[in-house]
Amino acid sequence: MPSASRSRSLPSGDPPSVSDPIRIDVAAAAGGYPVLVGAGASSSLPQLARAHAPGGRVGLVSDSNVGPLHAERIAEACRQEGLAVSLQTFPAGERSKTRTRWAELTDAFLDFGLGRDGCVMAVGGGVATDLGGFVAATYLRGVPVIQVPTSYLAMIDASVGGKTGVDVEAGKNLVGAFHAPVAVVADTALLRTLPAKERGEGLVEAVKHGAILDGDHLEVIEEGASDLLAAEADTAASVIAASVRIKAEVVAEDEREGGYRQILNFGHTVGHAVEAASEYGLGHGSAVALGMVAEAQMGEEMGITVAGTRDRLERVLGRILGRDAVSDAAPETADALFTRAVGFLDQDKKVRGGRPRYVLLEGIGSVAPGEGWTHDVPDEIAHGALERVLKGG
Amino acid sequence: MPSASRSRSLPSGDPPSVSDPIRIDVAAAAGGYPVLVGAGASSSLPQLARAHAPGGRVGLVSDSNVGPLHAERIAEACRQEGLAVSLQTFPAGERSKTRTRWAELTDAFLDFGLGRDGCVMAVGGGVATDLGGFVAATYLRGVPVIQVPTSYLAMIDASVGGKTGVDVEAGKNLVGAFHAPVAVVADTALLRTLPAKERGEGLVEAVKHGAILDGDHLEVIEEGASDLLAAEADTAASVIAASVRIKAEVVAEDEREGGYRQILNFGHTVGHAVEAASEYGLGHGSAVALGMVAEAQMGEEMGITVAGTRDRLERVLGRILGRDAVSDAAPETADALFTRAVGFLDQDKKVRGGRPRYVLLEGIGSVAPGEGWTHDVPDEIAHGALERVLKGG
Repeated sequence: MPSASRSRSLPSGDPPSVSDPIRIDVAAAAGGYPVLVGAGASSSLPQLARAHAPGGRVGLVSDSNVGPLHAERIAEACRQEGLAVSLQTFPAGERSKTRTRWAELTDAFLDFGLGRDGCVMAVGGGVATDLGGFVAATYLRGVPVIQVPTSYLAMIDASVGGKTGVDVEAGKNLVGAFHAPVAVVADTALLRTLPAKERGEGLVEAVKHGAILDGDHLEVIEEGASDLLAAEADTAASVIAASVRIKAEVVAEDEREGGYRQILNFGHTVGHAVEAASEYGLGHGSAVALGMVAEAQMGEEMGITVAGTRDRLERVLGRILGRDAVSDAAPETADALFTRAVGFLDQDKKVRGGRPRYVLLEGIGSVAPGEGWTHDVPDEIAHGALERVLKGG
Repeated sequence: MPSASRSRSLPSGDPPSVSDPIRIDVAAAAGGYPVLVGAGASSSLPQLARAHAPGGRVGLVSDSNVGPLHAERIAEACRQEGLAVSLQTFPAGERSKTRTRWAELTDAFLDFGLGRDGCVMAVGGGVATDLGGFVAATYLRGVPVIQVPTSYLAMIDASVGGKTGVDVEAGKNLVGAFHAPVAVVADTALLRTLPAKERGEGLVEAVKHGAILDGDHLEVIEEGASDLLAAEADTAASVIAASVRIKAEVVAEDEREGGYRQILNFGHTVGHAVEAASEYGLGHGSAVALGMVAEAQMGEEMGITVAGTRDRLERVLGRILGRDAVSDAAPETADALFTRAVGFLDQDKKVRGGRPRYVLLEGIGSVAPGEGWTHDVPDEIAHGALERVLKGG
């Protein structure tokens, strides 16, 4: 365009500079939205906030870890842009993902005077994006939310799909809403402050994307494992962008989780049960890693999944989690964990109104269609596989 | 159809019997839904529930008044159809429309084992349909809801539009979601149990529909006032159906309240403030009646609304509310009510992030476009009109 802005430093036609974020456009019923991935991408937040908060007010949600590291700086940058910002931080951790915190954040923004012409911004890991997203979904019956994931897990998994929610006593994420963001900004430079343990945990979801739909993606992760664990910003950006693309394609097919989107739950039926059984002492990634391995084992035993799939997954997960994913994740308490996990699978049965359903692979990169992309697995096979994986074998 | 069910008593081709419900199809982004209006329409509920709860479980929400009168019978009829029903009743009244009740109902249904393959049914007035609707909107990120309004207000106003929510300290309906029902069943035979006072209160919203879009509708209400107040089921059905059609057309234009839907807020800027100022001692209908009269007065003073509109509205509202709508609704406490209402208008300002906006008529049946269908009214005119209306003048 001849009238291109003069503030753009590169003449049009040149290749984008290495720090230009990768942009993925996600389709959603309520209007699509961009996911921007790259080192430094968060510098675009003040302008994005301005665009989505014509009234000039921004309700910023973050946690006690990410707040001082990143959210305060982002709030300040927004204020420099002339926006009024209310930064609300909650104590870091899954235990904050409650209806009580949701109500407190809502009331703080009402008190601040955030209106329909304002927006919410959530800065942090999956707890911040889920909780902040749910506040936005129900605030004055829904205001725009800009998601700013700062962990691998949130960048890879929570960026796309519009799921928001909180945990209740009966289980995780049982209360919530689908509320697509207006934009997602994944600044991979922020990953440097992510604790080492959480890096591998978060990359497990990228492994899942490779496992269900793209064997090449799995190889890229395996080969780039050291760089990824070192939070090298450009390698991270390229893997995150590839994962976001995979998830965006799935969600575009099935925004409300009626069918095809089920494939994203590979590893999660067992994963959620194990995570709950550990009282959330086990990280989400480790739990899903165990879940994927157990569900691959089930599939192999049922003759649905090609032999060797479990081994391949274990190898990649071992690189990512920096250890033998399975035996380390299941300490001496394996017996107790197994018993409790089976209990949670039964509870899942009750809550979902039927038997637990499992996503099973045909092999790496391909999900077995089953019935609505899930399978009924006989209890003896499901529990047997879980026991083998938890106790080693 | 030659294979028509033998249980149908009339041969096909005959005109429908008088007890066949009127069906209005409402358009909605997530798929349209039918509103069934007529005496006896609730007999279709077991089959509707069966269709929307393939898992066989129904979470029924009602209040302590409507539960024994109607919801228990409906629950029993659903059980006869082979469905498992959990009937949860809350104490009748607006004060139950809280996040606490919402959480209690949610937890009760989780405990009952209501799954994604179940549905919620809300039986009662606007509190039950708003609260039950919000439970459904956020339960496992959204399950289907069948709305069964049993009051004029809920049949006329809450049936269409998908608004759900609860009140918080800062104001009414500030937390909620848009969640379109899968069906609405307005059985006008149930209106017989509606206390006389609430009949007129509820019909005020029908007057509003006439005021903004259809002068003929206003005349039908005025002429049928005695039958309507006597809850004569067929007259009620025809007026409710006409109102539902008007509202459905507006909502189809603007499902998420971005613009045109604002016209449904005629009378409501003042109405909500007066209602809050009375600490909800004043009924919603009486408050909106005062609001419509005050906002007509504002419009006339600003030269936007044709002279005589306020008088016309007062006359119809007087027939419906069975008294002089204005002076009776504003007792000796008019001074205090006025002061408090102005305070709430200021608070509204703060919460909505700007000045309060008013919907103003050009005349009966026609709204002045203004800016996004609302107007900024100078405080001295707005407060002056409110004072005149509250104190008589």
